[in-house]
Amino acid sequence: MFAGATSPPLRIGYLLFPGFQALDVFGPLDALNILSWTHEIVLHLVASSRWPVSTKPDSYPNAFEQRVLPTDTFTSVPPLDVLFVPGGLGTRSQNVDIEEAIQFIHDVFPRLKYLVTVCTGATLAAQAGVLNGKRATTNKKAWKMVTEKSPLVEWVPQARWVVDGKVWTSAGVSAGIDTTLAWIEEVWGPQVAKQIADGMEYVRETESTLDPFCALNGLAAP
Amino acid sequence: MFAGATSPPLRIGYLLFPGFQALDVFGPLDALNILSWTHEIVLHLVASSRWPVSTKPDSYPNAFEQRVLPTDTFTSVPPLDVLFVPGGLGTRSQNVDIEEAIQFIHDVFPRLKYLVTVCTGATLAAQAGVLNGKRATTNKKAWKMVTEKSPLVEWVPQARWVVDGKVWTSAGVSAGIDTTLAWIEEVWGPQVAKQIADGMEYVRETESTLDPFCALNGLAAP
Repeated sequence: MFAGATSPPLRIGYLLFPGFQALDVFGPLDALNILSWTHEIVLHLVASSRWPVSTKPDSYPNAFEQRVLPTDTFTSVPPLDVLFVPGGLGTRSQNVDIEEAIQFIHDVFPRLKYLVTVCTGATLAAQAGVLNGKRATTNKKAWKMVTEKSPLVEWVPQARWVVDGKVWTSAGVSAGIDTTLAWIEEVWGPQVAKQIADGMEYVRETESTLDPFCALNGLAAP
Repeated sequence: MFAGATSPPLRIGYLLFPGFQALDVFGPLDALNILSWTHEIVLHLVASSRWPVSTKPDSYPNAFEQRVLPTDTFTSVPPLDVLFVPGGLGTRSQNVDIEEAIQFIHDVFPRLKYLVTVCTGATLAAQAGVLNGKRATTNKKAWKMVTEKSPLVEWVPQARWVVDGKVWTSAGVSAGIDTTLAWIEEVWGPQVAKQIADGMEYVRETESTLDPFCALNGLAAP
């Protein structure tokens, strides 16, 4: 029997901020979109305001840009069962959007059934204090920057994703897809997760500790 | 020496229509976004109008929705070097957005340096007539629906992607990422493609003929 079979989480929030990494959001969301075709779940795209949120990072003014419309703000969104937090170069900015995002994670965390971070989304959760004393992982290229800033987290380098209680943290970018499919498997069962992965024609990594990008980035196993 | 080393395509268009599959767009775009951090390329998100384009398919009114802002319309977009065409349940709709998308592909194709389709984006290109007599592939679950509609295309089932001249066609959804990285390798070279894939922490499929979803969907090798 999988964990949430009797009471699956219905209300899913996805945090957005300027300079989010596109695949950190739309990899997991593609799986969740397919899930929503046949399951009664609700999505809130949550940001500082309802203005479109851009993928463009401050650090590359000539970069490609995609703009996505949030559905709710940090102050207007109803209570959530699950919060997904993406990463991206925008996490490195010091601006009101990031400050509000960190505060939002801090405020909603106690009532969440699950927190799922993707890539450097973990640095926002860590700065919100909700990863302290927990095992977690993050992007392997940005490892030093993220982990040095939050020494109270038990960072795990050799991991595609890490689960500690209700907190699921993913390695970089595309690892968010494997993490989300594993989370769907945990909540809705293996058949649902397999059908979604097959529908996405996605070759899943189902072993959370298999991560070639740990060694590639010169990080030692724990 | 890779193909486009002396004159890489600069102006990339990405077609959007209601009910597009999120990962068909943001998988390839994540790779192209990273490319744009260090290369002078330009992106146009092209749709029927400048209104936000929704991922929500007609067939699932309670499905999750993300809305993305186009930058250009089919009539206002400047000449393109490359056009990416995503798939999704929206390709099965008969509405003015899809009709205009097919017409747009037909009209711009002769001047493109590359056409790249992802998933059932191939059915729009096929209906535009630009795949006739060419080898191409598409989503394996939607195989019958797509291929029966366009018998003049030489459909290749056992393929993660297929290249025929300037036309690159991808298998379903996530295959678009492998296809785009292969295309980036063709145009900007293997090092650039590897750096982007590693930055995405993405385990690439680099063999275009390796496709587990052909057999999984009961399709025979050609």
